Amino acid sequence: MDAAEFRRRGREMVDYVADYLENIEERPVSSDVEPGYLRSLIPTEAPLEPDNYDDIIKDVERVIMPGITHWNSPYFYAYFPASNSYPAMLADMLCGGLGCIGFTWAASPACTELETVMLDWLGKMLKLPDHFIAGTHGRGGGVIQGTASEATLMALLAARCKTLRRIRAANSELSEGEIRSKLVAYTSEQAHSSVERASLIGDVTMRMVPTDSTYAVRGSMLKKMLEEDKAAGLIPFYFCATLGTTASCAFDNITELGPICNKEHVWMHIDAAYAGSAFICPEFRPLLNGIEFADSFNFNPHKWLLVNFDCSTMWVKKREDIIGAFNVDPLYLKHENQESGAVQVYFHLHTQYILQTQVALAKEFESLVRADKRFEICAEVVMGLVCFRLKGSNDLNQLLLKRITNSREIHLVPCQLSGVFVLRFAICARSTDSRHIQHAWRHITQLSCELLQENH
Amino acid sequence: MDAAEFRRRGREMVDYVADYLENIEERPVSSDVEPGYLRSLIPTEAPLEPDNYDDIIKDVERVIMPGITHWNSPYFYAYFPASNSYPAMLADMLCGGLGCIGFTWAASPACTELETVMLDWLGKMLKLPDHFIAGTHGRGGGVIQGTASEATLMALLAARCKTLRRIRAANSELSEGEIRSKLVAYTSEQAHSSVERASLIGDVTMRMVPTDSTYAVRGSMLKKMLEEDKAAGLIPFYFCATLGTTASCAFDNITELGPICNKEHVWMHIDAAYAGSAFICPEFRPLLNGIEFADSFNFNPHKWLLVNFDCSTMWVKKREDIIGAFNVDPLYLKHENQESGAVQVYFHLHTQYILQTQVALAKEFESLVRADKRFEICAEVVMGLVCFRLKGSNDLNQLLLKRITNSREIHLVPCQLSGVFVLRFAICARSTDSRHIQHAWRHITQLSCELLQENH
Repeated sequence: MDAAEFRRRGREMVDYVADYLENIEERPVSSDVEPGYLRSLIPTEAPLEPDNYDDIIKDVERVIMPGITHWNSPYFYAYFPASNSYPAMLADMLCGGLGCIGFTWAASPACTELETVMLDWLGKMLKLPDHFIAGTHGRGGGVIQGTASEATLMALLAARCKTLRRIRAANSELSEGEIRSKLVAYTSEQAHSSVERASLIGDVTMRMVPTDSTYAVRGSMLKKMLEEDKAAGLIPFYFCATLGTTASCAFDNITELGPICNKEHVWMHIDAAYAGSAFICPEFRPLLNGIEFADSFNFNPHKWLLVNFDCSTMWVKKREDIIGAFNVDPLYLKHENQESGAVQVYFHLHTQYILQTQVALAKEFESLVRADKRFEICAEVVMGLVCFRLKGSNDLNQLLLKRITNSREIHLVPCQLSGVFVLRFAICARSTDSRHIQHAWRHITQLSCELLQENH
Repeated sequence: MDAAEFRRRGREMVDYVADYLENIEERPVSSDVEPGYLRSLIPTEAPLEPDNYDDIIKDVERVIMPGITHWNSPYFYAYFPASNSYPAMLADMLCGGLGCIGFTWAASPACTELETVMLDWLGKMLKLPDHFIAGTHGRGGGVIQGTASEATLMALLAARCKTLRRIRAANSELSEGEIRSKLVAYTSEQAHSSVERASLIGDVTMRMVPTDSTYAVRGSMLKKMLEEDKAAGLIPFYFCATLGTTASCAFDNITELGPICNKEHVWMHIDAAYAGSAFICPEFRPLLNGIEFADSFNFNPHKWLLVNFDCSTMWVKKREDIIGAFNVDPLYLKHENQESGAVQVYFHLHTQYILQTQVALAKEFESLVRADKRFEICAEVVMGLVCFRLKGSNDLNQLLLKRITNSREIHLVPCQLSGVFVLRFAICARSTDSRHIQHAWRHITQLSCELLQENH
């Protein structure tokens, strides 16, 4: 394909994408294919002769689209949003054309510099403490990761390294293996599964801290566990707090937890993957109070700030903690102006309007649920997530979700709160409006009616 | 930005990218900016009012381009290629428009299925053994990672987990901590720095195996280290072989190494990040002989197969080894058809033509070097990398590279072989042709002439 053909095909692809997003409501939000559906639709081996371009594009509708869950459909209420937007797509096209890899400053200075300065912009929008901003006299700064899981792991590994060095310096008689086997990490029992996975990768013990009635970890709960473990000769070293849990969007009490962690040399990482974007709105910023105690903080602009996947932004209080943990320095990466590098991104910052609209839609859905005595709300609605269920058994609610899923009119996923099976209704698509919320509720109540009648 | 504006701006961006790539030779290949150049060119905080789109695009030339190293310039001979191509860019535009996250099968079935089937296609093109192909009766298959570093780490962690289980099952008196402290991983002293970093993340000892005169690890060298370590009560568990090292494109002798690893329960991972693409060419496929002994294998289509970053393909012999090591199963990710998920990608397979052309260009450059008695070739030229230097001191060659870099006519990076400072000339851009090679050589010899005259 030469440049001339790319110009023609590129225009067609821009139109295809615009058509897709303009007409996304007409497609069933979720897929009804069976596992293995795709293999039979294409040859078993790569063709030896090139395919015709038009045939390849026809295959998008014939082969790919039947197996797509349309995350940007206004009928998509599952997981959390995976935002994309037209400006972000344009920026990605530019990045693809440049095709440079910013693994060191010298490998393309603009990548590292733009990343650092944009994370200062974004950090200031969130009113992060000065020590997280690179362009100050502090020792911290921001860096882009692929996902919140990576940020959680990175922080855990840095904390592990820092603690090993600290304990060894004070107790030269202890071997590294002995110290390692005493390390304990902590997180909420409501934390995302990737936090537990980080402890498996880092090969350290992780204890799950119980939560209060709002599914938040409180200072007293962590303190109790720390005392127990220290008394048993163990070494607490890492706590991952969550602001906006996946199950119910609960907020750990970091103003209580932070001072405890600081006093005990426990690295406090804050995972605000979903909720973090909302802290640019003044009315939500108080939920980030306590950030001044954190060693690292992370949220996903690719969830709720209209940036395409993947863009997970992480700030650390001391850059040297991260760099020191993994530095290996081969000659082919040396250059005169060394710096920690990372992946290129170029993004345009957006306003608070869409976030506030989506929170209002969640409140609208909440009030519909509350007005119907057959249902109950299962967790406080703070942002764009509503946890609700039919009053009654778990089996009943599982059956309701199964019917919702099979109808393929809307798409949502469940969670478990206090051992109870709960439906999660997350406002995801940029195009979701009141009309879609009302429709979703009518659909849910109609399926519920049928179900309750059959059960009586 | 609405769909209508996206259609207009998208066309402009397609043209911008095509113009950029058509005229890339006119830009200096590397940047002459000083660290911190970018911060002063833009405001210190995000604007409260939206910028005008045209102004933002003007900023690409004003702010970004001066700090870009043009990886797709035909004058770029540094690191290894970071391929992009027009079809890959079109596929990325489509992915951005769909914006779905394929972290489980249900989250978008087409993502997982296309990935699995395309990796079967690609695996068959490389003539991988059947047990690596998912659509057979074997237990293996392929999965896409972001980078070769991730694949190396993933394999190391899976091997660590598998070995811990095996040793514990046979020696119930040993604690997990005791076993862990005895684990030893191995790799070539010529391996990429990310292999050592994987051992830091996995917190296991890694020993560097010496290489022969071609910078390859031989069976006897690994065997000797294994015997020593076993005699000392240690537990060898992982060996990362390299096919096509970063420094000199050397090939570890996996037909010798494989049987030793298999016999000793040592997981053999093969990192063929750069060279792997070439194995689709029949004349290079013999370099992959011995793959039948590997537990996992990885290479980067984003390096040399015209796929945009990031797309690093990994095959494992037994899927359960990877899945078993990190499985955590929260309710919000459960669904009826569970499968290991991964990131979406759609790529068109390409012919062998470009690879063979690039290898021929490397041979052309090699013959230019060999014809000039002032220079020497430092490692066998097998693929697209030529390691060479001026006969003489390291200081002399460092000075030559400094002048090449400062001239900004061509861009290359050094490496170290047997303690000697060597220049690495890697054929990277799709558009590099014989004219560029001849120009590069004239440029290098002219700078060398000046340097040698000054020194006499």
